[in-house]
Amino acid sequence: MRRAGPADAPVIGRLLHDFNREYDEPIPEPEPLGRRIAALLAADELTVLLAGVEPLGLAVLRFRAAIWSHAQECYLAELYVVPARRREGIGRALMLAAIELARSQGANYMDLGTGEADVGARALYESLGFDNRGGRLNGPVNYFYEREL
Amino acid sequence: MRRAGPADAPVIGRLLHDFNREYDEPIPEPEPLGRRIAALLAADELTVLLAGVEPLGLAVLRFRAAIWSHAQECYLAELYVVPARRREGIGRALMLAAIELARSQGANYMDLGTGEADVGARALYESLGFDNRGGRLNGPVNYFYEREL
Repeated sequence: MRRAGPADAPVIGRLLHDFNREYDEPIPEPEPLGRRIAALLAADELTVLLAGVEPLGLAVLRFRAAIWSHAQECYLAELYVVPARRREGIGRALMLAAIELARSQGANYMDLGTGEADVGARALYESLGFDNRGGRLNGPVNYFYEREL
Repeated sequence: MRRAGPADAPVIGRLLHDFNREYDEPIPEPEPLGRRIAALLAADELTVLLAGVEPLGLAVLRFRAAIWSHAQECYLAELYVVPARRREGIGRALMLAAIELARSQGANYMDLGTGEADVGARALYESLGFDNRGGRLNGPVNYFYEREL
């Protein structure tokens, strides 16, 4: 588990490209995606954790200054493990490293959106203390809404 | 409807304080919250829209560089209308202004989290094209997960 540097941008572009091929959405090719990642890493606009040497997965973190406290907040934008290596704990290791990194960056809060049908990811997040019911057992769930502009 | 400047920080602090009194969470007092908002506005860390002269409501936007395109993304962090003035279209006017402002800042995507029980807010977001099912009618819903760190 290691934090990505600018030299990792091409492999991050490839992983994110492969990730999005699992969805029915238009996706940038690996090379331009890698160049975008390189620019964002250089501008400190995002933080990427890589699992394994090849690597086998990644977590993409976005930080923002918290409104309600003098701290940072962390948005988990992407979490991906290559299909052939799932169910081995790589996602959990990435999440544990992401939480540790977020804390080390001064974050006191993390949020993320995930799909109802992604039962493996949801079980992972819930086992790590993430909650989609405002902290109230059997409370109303919180939805993640989005739109193109 | 107008974009807040640094001089608006105290009233924003009061509105956000009042907003959070509707939830069972510890909240900063209006004055320190206003000072935090002033610092974040000065650092261009957030963008606030105010409705009305008093004002009667606000939208808090956070921008980040998009990963998947050469654009910005906008996270709607807060949307609030004072209780006595709800159901008058102020929230809708704030959202329409927020979408327009986000587009003017180069954003091609907006996301937000909201509770299942906030039926008025959900109806508003859905009427404006926000979707919590990945764009698929009757598809699996997307949840908003969070935790303190």
